[in-house]
Formats: sequence, structure tokens, C-alpha cells
Amino acid sequence: TIYAITPTYARWTQKADLTRLSQTLLHVKNFHWIVVEDADRKTLLVTKFLSNCGLKYTHLNAKTDQNFKLKDSDPNWLMPRGVAQRNTGLTWIRNNISPQTEGYLYFMDDDNTYDLQLFKEIRTTQLASAWPVGLSGGLKFEGPGFCKDGKVLSWYTAWKPERPFPIDMAGFAVNIKLLFQYKEAGFSNATPRGYLESHFLTGLHLTINDMEAKANQCTDILVWHTRTEKAKMKQEDKLIKLGKPSNPNIEV
Amino acid sequence: TIYAITPTYARWTQKADLTRLSQTLLHVKNFHWIVVEDADRKTLLVTKFLSNCGLKYTHLNAKTDQNFKLKDSDPNWLMPRGVAQRNTGLTWIRNNISPQTEGYLYFMDDDNTYDLQLFKEIRTTQLASAWPVGLSGGLKFEGPGFCKDGKVLSWYTAWKPERPFPIDMAGFAVNIKLLFQYKEAGFSNATPRGYLESHFLTGLHLTINDMEAKANQCTDILVWHTRTEKAKMKQEDKLIKLGKPSNPNIEV
Ligand SMILES: O=c1ccn([C@@H]2O[C@H](COP(=O)(O)OP(=O)(O)O)[C@@H](O)[C@H]2O)c(=O)[nH]1
Ligand SMILES: O=c1ccn([C@@H]2O[C@H](COP(=O)(O)OP(=O)(O)O)[C@@H](O)[C@H]2O)c(=O)[nH]1
Ligand SMILES: [Mn+2]
Ligand SMILES: [Mn+2]
Repeated sequence: TIYAITPTYARWTQKADLTRLSQTLLHVKNFHWIVVEDADRKTLLVTKFLSNCGLKYTHLNAKTDQNFKLKDSDPNWLMPRGVAQRNTGLTWIRNNISPQTEGYLYFMDDDNTYDLQLFKEIRTTQLASAWPVGLSGGLKFEGPGFCKDGKVLSWYTAWKPERPFPIDMAGFAVNIKLLFQYKEAGFSNATPRGYLESHFLTGLHLTINDMEAKANQCTDILVWHTRTEKAKMKQEDKLIKLGKPSNPNIEV
Repeated sequence: TIYAITPTYARWTQKADLTRLSQTLLHVKNFHWIVVEDADRKTLLVTKFLSNCGLKYTHLNAKTDQNFKLKDSDPNWLMPRGVAQRNTGLTWIRNNISPQTEGYLYFMDDDNTYDLQLFKEIRTTQLASAWPVGLSGGLKFEGPGFCKDGKVLSWYTAWKPERPFPIDMAGFAVNIKLLFQYKEAGFSNATPRGYLESHFLTGLHLTINDMEAKANQCTDILVWHTRTEKAKMKQEDKLIKLGKPSNPNIEV
């Protein structure tokens, strides 16, 4: 089973993003979706969405500490995103899945794009695996560089190459047996920018030498770090100011 | 059969957008995807993508007249988008599908988000049908307003309400018999901003009185006018300037 942890937060495009991601996941067998809302309590929108999505899922919530919450005007790189949510997902796996279960952990942000072949690759992960992520790190792709015989030999990145794992959250998977072996491994808001992935993977006592190269020796792009444009709500904002928003009974 | 016309053009996020859209469409039976590239000739990327996507498709191309082509620095509303491509798709249907075929025409932009229920609704279109589009027109949703007994009685929009059809391209479908009845109906680059849909639908001799209300009397949002953020390629642009782009053999 692939256990995928997806942090998600309320915004105009949330239901759309979750909808198309769920349509991708409906093609994947033996998949368990752990959706963690960045919210004090589970929202009605996500609750209804999940109960109708046709997937096997677990619905959790964990609010980002307000000291680490992005403001609407902040650039999105200012704070780490998804930290509390991913930790909550990891705790759920450690507490609810038996350590003997054959399983794979993958972090799936709600606005990325995933090729179906990726899920087949993830299922071959002995310990930990990696592949390049398209449109990441300001590059065409970022992640494993030179690979040979199924091993990652170097990284390809343009930014902070000194990072132990200069790869995106979407660029690796680990066998869940590691989560039970290293029970402290997780994420922290105190991590410097760009180091979330490295912090987690070094917490699992992994080095580049452990990384299995997937996706055709890391020459195929099977996941893209797409981002959904913030919805332009010029007219709606006016209506809200006038106290006359669009029909609140219609969910978008 | 639903005949869906999708204009598409080369950009960093194109393959990602086509990939997730194709994953949506793989859930839809009796579907024929007419993909029209905005290009002088069919590209290798789209050709390979389509031949592997598992859908029934027709691959066409039609380059947007350079006088009407957006520059990278232009705001996207400056020019109509997808005109030549949609016309090419319409011509293909008129020349290749028998007028007796039971079929429905729908325009699907490559970066929108579609709920699977929408395709069931489209298949009940006697003449022409409409439903609201989420995140459109600067509003939470735009399109049909008050509906009753399956008829659209008013429009809901905040911008140019005088338009005959103040709805997005994703907000309507027509029975293909109309295409054979009104052979001139199509799109034009000379259409004023916001009037593409109205021009096409009035060309099919339709008025609001003809519009069948779908999506639960137009109270459910089954399609969202999402937009994919332009990829940030700061590092890649530097490499390109240095004549050392990322491996050109890796397709993104
Ligand atoms: O305040 C926030 C911002 C983001 N996210 C989630 O964290 C992940 C990464 O965020 P985002 O996609 O905005 O970041 P980027 O694309 O810049 O990496 C996504 O699944 C978001 O839904 C969250 O839970 N709370
Ligand atoms: O130069 C262009 C710009 C856009 N499009 C296509 O036309 C449709 C509408 O364009 P876009 O999504 O950029 O417009 P918007 O979201 O602003 O309506 C999409 O399917 C695009 O792929 C195109 O063929 N050529
Ligand atoms: Mn993202
Ligand atoms: Mn669009």
C-alpha cells in the first residue's frame, strides 16, 4: 500500500485542486490517502469531498502554528509549508499501521501533477528512492543527477547544493519500515529554507548512497511541481464588501 | 459521444496540464478528445503524449495569427485565446462526423478542472445546455443565475452583463446537430473582449430561452476556471543564457 500524506488548506482553489488530484488517485490501486487539513477542526467542505471521492482515505487536521503561518501578502517561500500536517500524518501511520505492513510513504502536495507510472515506481522502494521533479528549484527539473545501476550518484540542483538532499518533497518515497525504526524522524518549523526534505531524510539515517534511482535511471519526469494560480476574485471581493456575496449555499 | 475541443500551446507547464487533464478524461466513457495545438506543425511532445494517453483522440494544429498572439509580457486578457484552434476543431467535426451521429460538443481548456459528474450532464443536452463555472469572471462562479424546471431564466455575472451569453467557454455544451444546421457558427479574433462565447452561441441561433439548466438547476459547481501558475524558471533561464541548459533529452 502507498500511504500518501497530503497537507491542504482553505483557499478558493482548494476543492478544484483536491478534485483533480482525486481523479488521478482513482487510477491507483492499493492506495491510502492521508489528507491533513491546516485547520483547527475538520471543515465541512473537505469532509464532504472526501466522503464522496471514492478513495480509501483518512481525514486529519493540524493547524499550523500562527507564528509560522503565511500571511496573504507574504511570498510563499517565507515559511515552511505543511510541517504540522505532515507530522500529524506520520504520527497517524506510526500509531495505526502495523510495522509488518508492506507500505510506502509518499508526500503529495495538493497542487502538484503526478504521472500514473510514478506509483508503480514507488512500490519498488526497498528502503528509499528518488527521482527528478519537473519545474522545481527554478529549473526544468531538480533532484537526482547522474544515476547508474539503480543508484543515485549525484544531485542536480542550482540552489543550496550543499543540502544533503537537494530535492523536492515530491521527489522521494521511503519504505514505511523506516518510520518504525526511526520514530523521531519528522519535520520542524525551525528548519532553514530548503532543508525540510533533508531534515526528514537524515532523520531516517539516510544518505545519498541509500537512494534507489527510479523513473528510468532518473531520466523520466513523472511528477511536476505545478502551482495553481491564486483565484482572481475582484468582483467577488467587491460584493463581499457590500455585504452581498455570491450565493453562500453554492460551494465552489 | 462527447466531442471535446482543447486548444493547447507550448509552455513549461503544458505536459503537466495535459497529463492531469487526460487522467480526468480516462474516467469518461464515449469521449473523443480533439486536441488542437497552437503551432505551425504538430510538436513531438504532444504527439508522443497523445499516443500514450489511452484516450480516443484527434490531433490537429492551427497557429494563432501573429497579430493576435499574446506576448509573454501581455496580460492574458489582451487577446482572445484559442480562436483558430477551436475553429479548426469545429471544421474537423463538420467534415468527419456524420450529421446523424448522437454527439455533444464541449470546449475544454487545458488548465481547467472538471468534476466527472459534468460529463453525465452534458450527455443530456437536447439542443444547448449551461451551468455555472467556478472561479470565473472575478466571481465565486459565473453563468446561469435563476433556473427553474430545467430552464435558464437569468444570468449571474458582474462584468458586461449586457452580453447575450455572459458565460465562460467551460459553461455550456451544444448538441452537434446544431453544428450541421448552422455551418458558419464559429469564433473570430475580431470579437470584443468577453464576447467569444456569445458570438459562437448566437451564431447557432440560440437565445437564453433555449438553454437547458444542468448541474442541479445550476446550483452545483462542476467545473472550475483554474489557471496554472507560470513556472518560475529563474535558474534555468540563467543556464540557458550561459548556453548550458538542463539536459535537453529530458522532456518535462
Ligand atoms: O498555509 C498553508 C500553505 C500550504 N499548505 C499545504 O502545504 C503543501 C505545500 O504548499 P504549497 O503547494 O502552497 O507550496 P509550494 O507549491 O510553494 O511548494 C500543499 O499541499 C498545501 O496545501 C498548508 O497546509 N498550509
Ligand atoms: O497563445 C495561446 C494561449 C492559450 N491557448 C489555449 O487556449 C485556451 C485558453 O487559454 P488560457 O487557459 O491561457 O486562458 P484563460 O485561462 O485566461 O481563459 C487554453 O486551452 C490554452 O491552452 C492557445 O492555444 N494559445
Ligand atoms: Mn505546491
Ligand atoms: Mn485557462
